[in-house]
Amino acid sequence: MSDPPVRFTLEAGGGDGPRAGMLHTRWGPCPTPAFMPVGTQATVKALTPDEVAATGARVILCNAYHLLLRPGPERVAAAGGLHRWMGWRDAILTDSGGFQVFSLGHLRRLEEDGVVFRSHLDGAEIRLTPESAVAVQESLGSDIAMALDVCTPHDADEPAAREALEITHRWALRCRDAHRGESQALFPVCQGGTHATLRHESARRLAETADWPGFGVGGLSVGEPREQTRAMLAASVSGLPPGRPRYLMGVGAPEDLLDAVAGGADLFDCVLPTRLGRNGGCFTPNGRISIRAARFRELDGPLDPDCDCLTCRGYAASYLHHLFRCEELLAYRLASIHNLRFLARLMEAARAAVLAGTFARFRTSFMERYRPADGEARAEQRRRFLARKIGPTS
Amino acid sequence: MSDPPVRFTLEAGGGDGPRAGMLHTRWGPCPTPAFMPVGTQATVKALTPDEVAATGARVILCNAYHLLLRPGPERVAAAGGLHRWMGWRDAILTDSGGFQVFSLGHLRRLEEDGVVFRSHLDGAEIRLTPESAVAVQESLGSDIAMALDVCTPHDADEPAAREALEITHRWALRCRDAHRGESQALFPVCQGGTHATLRHESARRLAETADWPGFGVGGLSVGEPREQTRAMLAASVSGLPPGRPRYLMGVGAPEDLLDAVAGGADLFDCVLPTRLGRNGGCFTPNGRISIRAARFRELDGPLDPDCDCLTCRGYAASYLHHLFRCEELLAYRLASIHNLRFLARLMEAARAAVLAGTFARFRTSFMERYRPADGEARAEQRRRFLARKIGPTS
Repeated sequence: MSDPPVRFTLEAGGGDGPRAGMLHTRWGPCPTPAFMPVGTQATVKALTPDEVAATGARVILCNAYHLLLRPGPERVAAAGGLHRWMGWRDAILTDSGGFQVFSLGHLRRLEEDGVVFRSHLDGAEIRLTPESAVAVQESLGSDIAMALDVCTPHDADEPAAREALEITHRWALRCRDAHRGESQALFPVCQGGTHATLRHESARRLAETADWPGFGVGGLSVGEPREQTRAMLAASVSGLPPGRPRYLMGVGAPEDLLDAVAGGADLFDCVLPTRLGRNGGCFTPNGRISIRAARFRELDGPLDPDCDCLTCRGYAASYLHHLFRCEELLAYRLASIHNLRFLARLMEAARAAVLAGTFARFRTSFMERYRPADGEARAEQRRRFLARKIGPTS
Repeated sequence: MSDPPVRFTLEAGGGDGPRAGMLHTRWGPCPTPAFMPVGTQATVKALTPDEVAATGARVILCNAYHLLLRPGPERVAAAGGLHRWMGWRDAILTDSGGFQVFSLGHLRRLEEDGVVFRSHLDGAEIRLTPESAVAVQESLGSDIAMALDVCTPHDADEPAAREALEITHRWALRCRDAHRGESQALFPVCQGGTHATLRHESARRLAETADWPGFGVGGLSVGEPREQTRAMLAASVSGLPPGRPRYLMGVGAPEDLLDAVAGGADLFDCVLPTRLGRNGGCFTPNGRISIRAARFRELDGPLDPDCDCLTCRGYAASYLHHLFRCEELLAYRLASIHNLRFLARLMEAARAAVLAGTFARFRTSFMERYRPADGEARAEQRRRFLARKIGPTS
C-alpha cells in the first residue's frame, strides 16, 4: 500500500493551543503554521510560481469555482493538471467551490442533492453536487481537496446554522464515498455558524465519521467580530483530533493569523495580502501602511528595513510609491511579493516561538508594535471582499 | 583625460549597408544592432530589471518628459539617479521629451527659445528649452542623452520640414554648449521630414558641427509608408560618419527593424513589443498572432517552439491564453517577455548574419516566413499609438 497523499506530524503543542507541525505531501514537507497564497484562477495574481515560492510559501490555494467555469476541469486535466499547467512545483489545495457559490446570493438555489447556480460570466446554469465537486478537484489534480459545504452568513440563527451543518455533514460523507483518493487528500469542512455548541458538535461528529487526513474550519472570517472568530475556532478545535491539521479558511490579516495560531489552527488562506498589495496596502511591523501616502515620496530606503523580500531588498519605498502613483504594473507585483513574504515570515517566527515554548511572548511583542486595522474597518473590508469575491479580479 | 562615456566600434559594414558594431558604456559592451526596450516611467512595463536583462537587452530607454512631470528630475537625482532607483544595471538612453511634447498638439507652443506646453497630468505650464532638456537628462543620470528636437508630422511640406530642421540644428548646438558630458554622451537628432534632400542635409550639417558620439534619426515611423521610412533613413545615413552609431527612433516591428538594419541603423526603440504584448499580441516566426485566438485554447505546447524565453520555456500557449481571457496580470508580463526576447534574438541573428556576410539571405529567409502587419493596419496602429503616446499607460 502506498503512502497517504498527505501526512501531518505534530511537533509541538496539542489540541487547543499553538502548535508546530509538518505537512508532508509528494512535493516535500511544509512546516506549519503556514499561510497559503491564493491563486484563484491558477495564478497567484501578478506573480510567477518562482516568485511565490521565493516568498517562502509551500502550499497555494486554487479556486475550483473559477476553474470550473474557465477553462474547465477537463481542459486543466488535458494540460497535465494544475501543477504542470501553471508551473507550481509544490502542494496545491483546492477549495470545493462552495464558498463562492454561496457568495452568489440570489444566483443560487440549495437542494439536498447539491447547489444550482448561474455562472457569473455567462449566466449558464450549473449544478454542483458533492460528487461533482470531488470530480472537479480530481481533474484539477490538487493535493488536498475540500468537501462541498454550506456556508451561512455570520448572523445566521441557530436553526439556520444547524440546517447548514447537517447538510454539510451529509455532503462530506458523499464526497468521501465519491473520492478516489490515491494521490489526493480530502478534508471535510466544519460549520456551525457563530454557535459554539454547533461548532463543537460539527467538529466532533465529522471526526467520528471517518479517519480524515485533515479538517477545514469554514464559515468564519465572514464579517463577524474578531472575538467571535476566536471563540468559534476554539469550539471547533475542541472537537478535532490533535494529530490532524486544521485549516482555518479565509484568514490572512497578521493579527487574525496570530489569533488563529494561538487557537490551534495550522493552515490559512486569504486573498488579503495580494489584494491589499494591488491597492498599495503593505504590511509592516508597525501595521498596515498605504505606500501611496505622501510620506513615502522621498523615502529612499526600503519600505520595511526588517524585510528580506525581493521588493525591500531591491527597491526604495520612493520607487514603489512612484510606481503606484503612475499605475505601473510592476507596482502590484512588488507589493504582493512583500505582503506574502511578510506573512510567511510571521508564520516562520510563530512556528519558531511555538517550538521554543515562547509563543505567547512572541505574539504579545508583535502586537505591541503592530497596529491592526480597527474592527469597523475590518468588517467593512471583509464585506467588500465578500461582495467582490466572484469575478475576474477576485 | 578620462574615457568618453560612450564609444562605438564598427566591426562589419560601413556607411550605408547593414552593420555590426559594439557600443561601449561604463556598464560594458552592447553588441549592435540592438533593440532598446522602453521604460517610459522608469520601469519597462510589468517587468523587473532582471527580466528585461534576461531577454538580452543591454540598453533601455526612459522618457524625460514623463519623468520630468513625475517624480521630477531632482527627485530621481536625490534617489541616486535612474540606474540605482529603478535597479537597472546596464546602459540607459533618455529621450529629450521633444517627441512627447510635440505629440501634445494644441497643448504646446513652439518658440525660438524652446517649447511651452501644459502637463497632461495637471495642466501646469512647463517650458522645455535645449538647456533644460539637457539639465533634466543630466539629473536623471542616463548614459546617453538626446538633444531637444522639433518633430514634424509625416505629411509636413518642405518649408515646414526645413523650418523644423533649422531650429533642431540651432537647439542641438545649444544642447551641446549646455551639456557637461563627463559621464553622459549627447546625441543630436537628424530631421528633415519626408524630404530626402533635407534628410541628407540635416545629417551632413549636424555631423560637421561637432564630433558627436552618435546620432538620432527622428521624425520617422510616425505613420508614413514603409518605403518612405527606408528612403528617408538612406538619405539620413548618407550624411553621417560611418564610425558613429545611428539610433533610428521609434522602430520596433520585426519587418521594420530588418529594413533599418539593412539601411545602416544600429539602435532602435519602440513601445510596440511591450504594448502589443499587453494586448495579447505576440511575435512568432510566422508573424504576429493574438494569443486570445480560440486556436490557442488547447495548445499545450509553447507559443513559439523556437523561442528560449522564460514564457515559452515555462508555460504552454493554452495557459497564456487562459491568463489573457481572465485578464490576469501575469499575462501582460509573460507576453512582454516573449516579445522583447523575440526582438533581441532577431537582432542577435541579424548581427551574426552581418558578421558572416549573409545578412541579405538572412533577411529574405526571415521575411519569407514572417507575415508582417499590412500597411493599413500598421499606419492605423501607429496613429493610435501616437494618439495614446502621452499618458500613464504610454
